[in-house]
Amino acid sequence: MRRVQLIVAYDGTNFHGFAKQNHAATIQGTIEKALYELTKEKIDLVGSGRTDAGVHAKGQCCIIDTNTTIPTKNLVKALNGRLPKSIVIKDAMDVKEDFHPRFMAKRKTYRYQILTSSVNDPFVGPFSYFYPYPLDIERMQKAAKYIEGEHDFKGFCASGSSVKGTVRMVYSIEVRKVDDLIQIDICGNGFLYNMVRIIAGTLIEVGRGKKAPRCIAEMIEKKDRTLGGPTAPPEGLTLLEVYYDDALRYE
Amino acid sequence: MRRVQLIVAYDGTNFHGFAKQNHAATIQGTIEKALYELTKEKIDLVGSGRTDAGVHAKGQCCIIDTNTTIPTKNLVKALNGRLPKSIVIKDAMDVKEDFHPRFMAKRKTYRYQILTSSVNDPFVGPFSYFYPYPLDIERMQKAAKYIEGEHDFKGFCASGSSVKGTVRMVYSIEVRKVDDLIQIDICGNGFLYNMVRIIAGTLIEVGRGKKAPRCIAEMIEKKDRTLGGPTAPPEGLTLLEVYYDDALRYE
Repeated sequence: MRRVQLIVAYDGTNFHGFAKQNHAATIQGTIEKALYELTKEKIDLVGSGRTDAGVHAKGQCCIIDTNTTIPTKNLVKALNGRLPKSIVIKDAMDVKEDFHPRFMAKRKTYRYQILTSSVNDPFVGPFSYFYPYPLDIERMQKAAKYIEGEHDFKGFCASGSSVKGTVRMVYSIEVRKVDDLIQIDICGNGFLYNMVRIIAGTLIEVGRGKKAPRCIAEMIEKKDRTLGGPTAPPEGLTLLEVYYDDALRYE
Repeated sequence: MRRVQLIVAYDGTNFHGFAKQNHAATIQGTIEKALYELTKEKIDLVGSGRTDAGVHAKGQCCIIDTNTTIPTKNLVKALNGRLPKSIVIKDAMDVKEDFHPRFMAKRKTYRYQILTSSVNDPFVGPFSYFYPYPLDIERMQKAAKYIEGEHDFKGFCASGSSVKGTVRMVYSIEVRKVDDLIQIDICGNGFLYNMVRIIAGTLIEVGRGKKAPRCIAEMIEKKDRTLGGPTAPPEGLTLLEVYYDDALRYE
């Protein structure tokens, strides 16, 4: 038995999220099915975390435990040949037997994309929130600054969700504009449920002039979700990369 | 009755090409259906040219003749609301009654994309030919130079196709590499059937070292299709823009 890490990219548009469900197509379920077809083993795929229905990934990190005689480097092609085009195994590598992609994740980077052109785009649209209104990028950048650092992000958590700790460290958040596309890149040691989409939804209201940049600071201080904007929709969100301490990951 | 120009972008992946067919989803058929739902008129959509099954467009130029009382500028939103996300009306404008998008096209620009990474990509892959092998970009650029200018492109035409004239003017062809993605942009006064895909397929063989850059010159001189590479697949091709003499197009 060996533990293998799979780096996975997916267009989440037509999936009901990462986590397996009985009667719906999910990322985990689809990959586990391909693994079974290939190895005839019932293999559990464990990811760095779930992504919601409609959310995408460029570098989701997963592990499997397997007895297959197929060499690890051959798993990439063999699995991709059994997967739909919307899911791609980018890389496969042997990792230490106690490496865990969720518990050992040190940092994650997410991107939220907002397409502000007056009409949608069939190429960028599927991976963006189509929001055809002018957004003041400088206001959004000013507001984003309040996010950086270690804070109690209770005010940026889907209401009703119950996690013990709500303190997270955001290492960086960058807001940029490429033509009509606004990209929010955020890197942190962990994120609460819906946290990135609540940040995006609030920054959109700031960019639109409906909220002051300071509202982000107030959401942090008062731990009050209701001071923020709506949760931005899932199609704009992509998990870009998950980072680990490589001494804990590889032999 | 007025003539309205529609600029259309589409992800052609799931369509059986531009031209209407009785029992298959096509770009023309889908837009005509939306036009009928909106205006209750049976409107013919006329494009600058057909695109094959699987081919995409960012700026296909089409016209319709209509008696609708809906203001032209409102047609964009009204139609997009009735179209799948893979087809987007980018713009609608009144044009002269005798403007014709096919016969009056002065130049067209196409892009052919080749993704050379070792594994596919769920975001760029749908709009690229996935060809996971190293390509020598400088050889491709050298070969592409022979395309430029006015030539008889009979050797770059799907065999068996019968068009009268096979002389075309290629104003420019540019081959560039962006990470693992190779883009071939070609602008000409017109293209024979499959001409861009035959050029792309031949440039790929040149980049791979299977053919010499000079083979392009020989295909032109000898008018011999068999000297070229295979016709590259449709998913890599996108019609970028169609150009007109605006004095003939707008009042």
